[in-house]
Amino acid sequence: MCDVNPGAYSETGLFVCFEGGEGAGKSTQSRLLHDWLVERGETVLLTFEPGDTPVGKELRRIVLDPATGELSDRTEALLYAADKAEHVDHVVVPALARGEVVITDRYVDSTLAYQGAGRTLDVAEVEAVARWATGDLRPHLTVVLDLEPEAGLGRFDERDRIEGQSLEFHQRVRQGFLDLAAADPDHYVVLDARAAIDDIAAAIRERIEPMLERR
Amino acid sequence: MCDVNPGAYSETGLFVCFEGGEGAGKSTQSRLLHDWLVERGETVLLTFEPGDTPVGKELRRIVLDPATGELSDRTEALLYAADKAEHVDHVVVPALARGEVVITDRYVDSTLAYQGAGRTLDVAEVEAVARWATGDLRPHLTVVLDLEPEAGLGRFDERDRIEGQSLEFHQRVRQGFLDLAAADPDHYVVLDARAAIDDIAAAIRERIEPMLERR
Repeated sequence: MCDVNPGAYSETGLFVCFEGGEGAGKSTQSRLLHDWLVERGETVLLTFEPGDTPVGKELRRIVLDPATGELSDRTEALLYAADKAEHVDHVVVPALARGEVVITDRYVDSTLAYQGAGRTLDVAEVEAVARWATGDLRPHLTVVLDLEPEAGLGRFDERDRIEGQSLEFHQRVRQGFLDLAAADPDHYVVLDARAAIDDIAAAIRERIEPMLERR
Repeated sequence: MCDVNPGAYSETGLFVCFEGGEGAGKSTQSRLLHDWLVERGETVLLTFEPGDTPVGKELRRIVLDPATGELSDRTEALLYAADKAEHVDHVVVPALARGEVVITDRYVDSTLAYQGAGRTLDVAEVEAVARWATGDLRPHLTVVLDLEPEAGLGRFDERDRIEGQSLEFHQRVRQGFLDLAAADPDHYVVLDARAAIDDIAAAIRERIEPMLERR
């Protein structure tokens, strides 16, 4: 489709994203980071994609419910993009403008990894749509919790529409996250999701702490 | 976002779109064209946007139901784009591939006019998203039924989320359709929607007939 802009970082607030495959511990670690920041006196918004707006909730149901059945790959990418547009405009940007720390469980990278690398759509085209959807707002830091898909998927008894994709799909997704992190090390930290929960949490805090002080 | 490709015209089938504001008679005229084509022995698929797929039906409800309330402009544009991606991949392209005539009540131009000109998003950006959604499939002919918004909206007692926008919004939408037609006269016919129904139908047939013979 076209080139993507250089990206915009909010000058107020601090925007942190958690990314990674299924069962990597994103919600556990985002919650631990939230609690630590609140103890330090920060105002923190803990949010997630898809689904943390009224319309996003409906879109989440459509994309994840196995009953939805087969969707065109572009339809799926556009539904995720619509969720992001609503999330950024109505949740993320207002909180950053108030100077808060925003922690989101999944953001643009999930779309690039799942709908780009996973579905094998053209990643540059998927990125152009997702960047347009989000006004090209970039996280100050993205934490990638890296895990072999075999390990992560084993944690679920019932799988949703995305979790139920093939192992090869989830392997492409994992590589998608690692490639994004490798291309921009200043804004990423990649951690082995098999490490102890407390050790992972400490590594994340160590990376975040100087960012808080610089604000 | 970026430049739009030159566009792709299906080499099988014939793809005809009806566009125009509310109450301009698109469904009446698309039905009359359908019936005339069927009488001539054509296989014709009469369809519409948004909402003529299972997921599209849910998206139609979200974008048109006044209870949805305010959506980010980009969210709305992306929901319409998702509907189009599903519609093109699962309805329009398969029928064209079978050599049928496909008549759709609204297509990409509605997104350009309503979400671009109407909502005042950047029209080139909205177009890039809508062209990506549809694989840049272009209609062989678009029929624009032109009507002053004052006349069209007066035909409704209850208005949906889009119909309920301001008169200025609907005036920008009307101008959006006229600008698109003026830029590509080979693929458009603009007709005054206040003319007699039979006269409009005859003018459309006159434009379509040589296209059928050329196939």
